[in-house]
Amino acid sequence: MKPDEFRQHAHEVVDWIADYLEHADRYPVCSRSRPGDLLNALPDAAPEEGEPMSRILADFERDIMPGITHWNHPRFFAYFPANNSGPSILGEMLSAGLGVNAMLWQTSPAATELEQRMMSWLGQLIGLPDGFHGVIHDTASTATFCALVCARERTTNFAINHSGLTGAAERGALRVYASREAHSSVLKGARLAGFGADHVVAVDIDAQRRMDAADLERRVTADREAGFVPCAVVATVGTTGCTAIDPLTAIAPVARRHRLWLHVDAALAGTAAILPEMRWILDGVAGADSLVFNPHKWLLTNFDCSAFYVRDPDHLQRTMSIHPEYLKTTRDAEVVNYMDWGMQLGRRFRALKLWFVLRSYGAQQLREMVAGHLALARAFAALVEADPEWELLAPVPLNTVCFRWRPAGLVDADTLNERNAALMARVNLDGVIYLTHTKLDDTTTLRLSVGQRATGPEHVQQAWDALRAGARALSGKDADEDA
Amino acid sequence: MKPDEFRQHAHEVVDWIADYLEHADRYPVCSRSRPGDLLNALPDAAPEEGEPMSRILADFERDIMPGITHWNHPRFFAYFPANNSGPSILGEMLSAGLGVNAMLWQTSPAATELEQRMMSWLGQLIGLPDGFHGVIHDTASTATFCALVCARERTTNFAINHSGLTGAAERGALRVYASREAHSSVLKGARLAGFGADHVVAVDIDAQRRMDAADLERRVTADREAGFVPCAVVATVGTTGCTAIDPLTAIAPVARRHRLWLHVDAALAGTAAILPEMRWILDGVAGADSLVFNPHKWLLTNFDCSAFYVRDPDHLQRTMSIHPEYLKTTRDAEVVNYMDWGMQLGRRFRALKLWFVLRSYGAQQLREMVAGHLALARAFAALVEADPEWELLAPVPLNTVCFRWRPAGLVDADTLNERNAALMARVNLDGVIYLTHTKLDDTTTLRLSVGQRATGPEHVQQAWDALRAGARALSGKDADEDA
Repeated sequence: MKPDEFRQHAHEVVDWIADYLEHADRYPVCSRSRPGDLLNALPDAAPEEGEPMSRILADFERDIMPGITHWNHPRFFAYFPANNSGPSILGEMLSAGLGVNAMLWQTSPAATELEQRMMSWLGQLIGLPDGFHGVIHDTASTATFCALVCARERTTNFAINHSGLTGAAERGALRVYASREAHSSVLKGARLAGFGADHVVAVDIDAQRRMDAADLERRVTADREAGFVPCAVVATVGTTGCTAIDPLTAIAPVARRHRLWLHVDAALAGTAAILPEMRWILDGVAGADSLVFNPHKWLLTNFDCSAFYVRDPDHLQRTMSIHPEYLKTTRDAEVVNYMDWGMQLGRRFRALKLWFVLRSYGAQQLREMVAGHLALARAFAALVEADPEWELLAPVPLNTVCFRWRPAGLVDADTLNERNAALMARVNLDGVIYLTHTKLDDTTTLRLSVGQRATGPEHVQQAWDALRAGARALSGKDADEDA
Repeated sequence: MKPDEFRQHAHEVVDWIADYLEHADRYPVCSRSRPGDLLNALPDAAPEEGEPMSRILADFERDIMPGITHWNHPRFFAYFPANNSGPSILGEMLSAGLGVNAMLWQTSPAATELEQRMMSWLGQLIGLPDGFHGVIHDTASTATFCALVCARERTTNFAINHSGLTGAAERGALRVYASREAHSSVLKGARLAGFGADHVVAVDIDAQRRMDAADLERRVTADREAGFVPCAVVATVGTTGCTAIDPLTAIAPVARRHRLWLHVDAALAGTAAILPEMRWILDGVAGADSLVFNPHKWLLTNFDCSAFYVRDPDHLQRTMSIHPEYLKTTRDAEVVNYMDWGMQLGRRFRALKLWFVLRSYGAQQLREMVAGHLALARAFAALVEADPEWELLAPVPLNTVCFRWRPAGLVDADTLNERNAALMARVNLDGVIYLTHTKLDDTTTLRLSVGQRATGPEHVQQAWDALRAGARALSGKDADEDA
C-alpha cells in the first residue's frame, strides 16, 4: 500500500471512528448475528490478487459490523466494562504506526521508561504504598498466573523452576487459597502453573460474599497439619459476581504468619481507588506481595492494559528471566528489560495510550467519571429497591448491581431462575441494553455493571425501562398462556 | 475528549503516521537514548487537570521519538523482523475504535468468526494439511507454553490439572526435548508449566545446527529406561540463532513412536512457507500436534498476532477451559469461544488487521515480498563470501545471514569476538543500520535479518557499506594504537 493510499484511507477510517464514538448508540448493543453468519459470508481462501481498500472497508461495514457487540455503547452493562476513549485510541494509533517491540530497554528505551513512569503514576493514583513496582501485562489472567508462579518458586526456593514436578512431591502438595467467589482465572492459573485444581482451596465467605479470614487461617493450619504446603492466597477486591471486597486488613496478617504469597486481584475495582472516598477498598494492601488491576476495564484505556505490581521485582525477574545470547545488550545491568517481568518475550508499546489518557483527562476528570458511575449504580439499585416486583441480591459497594425480577406471588426458585433468564434473553435481543448474569448460590442473578465512557443517567433509566417493559411483556405472555 | 477534538487530532495523527511510514529512514535505526533520559524528563505524578492534546502530541514528538528504536525502518536488520503495514494499521485503528473483547462468540460474533476464517486462510497459505485448527495468540511464547501444558495433560491424562505436582511424582519426571538452538521460550514455557529446567533435554544438532532426530530417539529411549516420562518435543523451523530448520520428517516418527507431543516453533519461518519453493521447510508437519508462526514477524501484520494451530482442539479446550456461570451463554454448544483456546480470558480483535493485510496485498504480493527478502539475504551473503576479510558462519536457508568480520592475520578467538562486538556497537551507534548478535558455539556472530516492509537492495548495500566502513575505522584505530 502506497503512503498516499494509506493517508487517504486512514483519514476515512478516522472519520468513521469519530462518527462511531459519537453514535455507537444507534446499534443494538449485543450483536444479533446467528452462528455462521459471517463465516459463511467469507470466501474459503485468501485472494490471490490484492483488493482495493475501498472494497475492504465497504465489506467491513457490511459484513463485520452486524457481528459486533458494542462494548463501548453507552448502554453496555454486561460483564465488567472495557471502556476506551479518544486519547487512548490516538495512543493506539501511534503505537501501531511505530510498531515497536518493548521487550528490551534497547529495543525502544522510551517504551520501557514510559511504562516505568506510568506504572508509578497509576500506583500513586490508587494510593498504592511505596515499594510496589509495576509492569503492564495483557490481562489479569496472565498477571495472576505470574503471581502464582512467583509464589510457587518462593515457597520451593526455585525447586520447581529447576527440577520440576518431581522435586516438589517430597514436600507435599502446594496449595492456593481463594474464596469461591474468586475469578476463574485463579483456578485456571493454578492449573497452568501445576498446582492442580484439587489444591485450590475455597475459603468460606461471609454474608456479603467476602472472604472469611478466620476460615482462611483455619484451613491453612489444618492443611499444614495434614502435610500440605500452603503457598499463596488470592484476595479479590471486587469479585466478578457481585463486586464483594475481600478484607485485606484481615487477610494480610494470615498470609504473613503462614508465609503465603498474597496476590490481590483488583482487576475491575482497583480503578475505584482513585477516589479518596473509595481508597478503603485497598486497606491492608501494604501486606500484599502483588496486585493487578486493569486500566483497560474502567480507566478509559483500550484493551489490553493490565497493571501488575509486585513488592519484590528481583524475585519476579528471577522467576521469569532467561537470557540467551541473542537477547543480551550492553545496557542490561543499568536498565529494566520488561521481558523479564512476565511470560511473553515480545511486548506492545502499551504505555503510550495510558500516558495519553492520564494526561488528557487528568486525575480530576477520571475521578469524576468513576464517581459518576458509582452514583449511577446506586441510583439503579434504588430503582430496584423501590419496586416490589424486583429485588437486590447483593450489596452495591461499586459499579455493579445484582438484582432480579420477582413478580408478585412467584416463589418457586426454579421458576424464578427461568423467568429471569428469559427476561435477560429478551432484553438483550431487543438490543436497547446488554447485560449478563451470574449465579449467587443457586439464584440466577442479573448484573448491571456501569462503566462505559458515555453512560449517563438517561441510559441507566433506559435500562430500567427496558427491563420493566420486558417483564411486562413476559407477564402478558404468561397470562395469555394461562388463559 | 469531545468527538470533534478526537476527529481533529486523529487526522493530525494520521498525517504524522503517513509521514513516518514514508520517512522512517530519516531516524537513526537504534535509539541513541541513554538510560534515564525519558524517565527524568517526565513529571513524577499524573497531572490533576487535563491537558490539551496538542501539548501531548508535541511532547510525544519531543520526548518519546528520540527514545524509539525504529523496528519498521528499512535498515532494521536486528533480531527477527516485526513488520507492519498500512492495511494492518488501518485494521488496528478500527479495532481500537470498536474496543471489543473477543473472549466469547457472543461478545462479538464477527471477531470470533473472522478469526476462524483467517486461521483457515493462513493455514492454506503455508500449506498446512487439513485437520489443523487455529487461534490467534499474542506471542509464540504463549503458544509454546500452551502447547507444553497440553502435552503435560495428555501424557498424564489430566492428572496435573486435577491433582497438581504431587500426583505426577509417582510416575517420574516429565521431560521435554528440544535442540540447544531452540528459542528461550521453550525453556521458559517448560519452567512455567512445572517441568523444570533440569527436564528440558538438549538434543544434539548436526553441522547445520538442525536437530539430530537419531539423537532424539536415543535420549528418549534412555530416559524411559531411567524412569523418566518423555512428554513433548519442540522442533524449531528457523532457529533464532541462524534459522536452522529441524527436520520434521525425521522427528515426527520419533514423536509418534514415543507418544511425544510434537510442537513446531516456526515463529519466523512459517511465513516463508507461503512460497511454493519454500514449502519443504514444513515437510512432515502432518505428524505434529501443534504449530506456531507469527504473522506479526514477517507478514506485514502488526504485533501482536501469533497463529497457533492444534490438531486436537478438544484437547486444547479440555486443558484450558473453565466455565464459571458468569461466562456462560446460550450459544456455547454451537460456537467457538476462543477464551477456551488459550490462557487469557480477554482477547483483542486481532483478526481484523490480518483480514485487511491478506486482502489488501493478496497472496501474490505477499509471496513477492518474502521472495524478495530471501533474495536480499542471499545477496548479502554473497557479498560476505566474496570478501576475504569477512566470513559466513552458517548456511542461509532463509532471511538471516550469520557472519563476522575476520581481518587478515587475526586468528585469536577472543580477539575476534571482541572485534566483532566492537564493530556491532559502532555501526549501531552510527545509526545507519541496526543489527544484533548471537553466539554460535563460542563465536560471536553478527546477524543480519531481512524482513521489513520497505527494505530493498539499496538498504542491504548500505548495511554492507556501513559494516565495512566501521571495520576500516576500527582497523585504523588499531593501527593508531599500535603506532
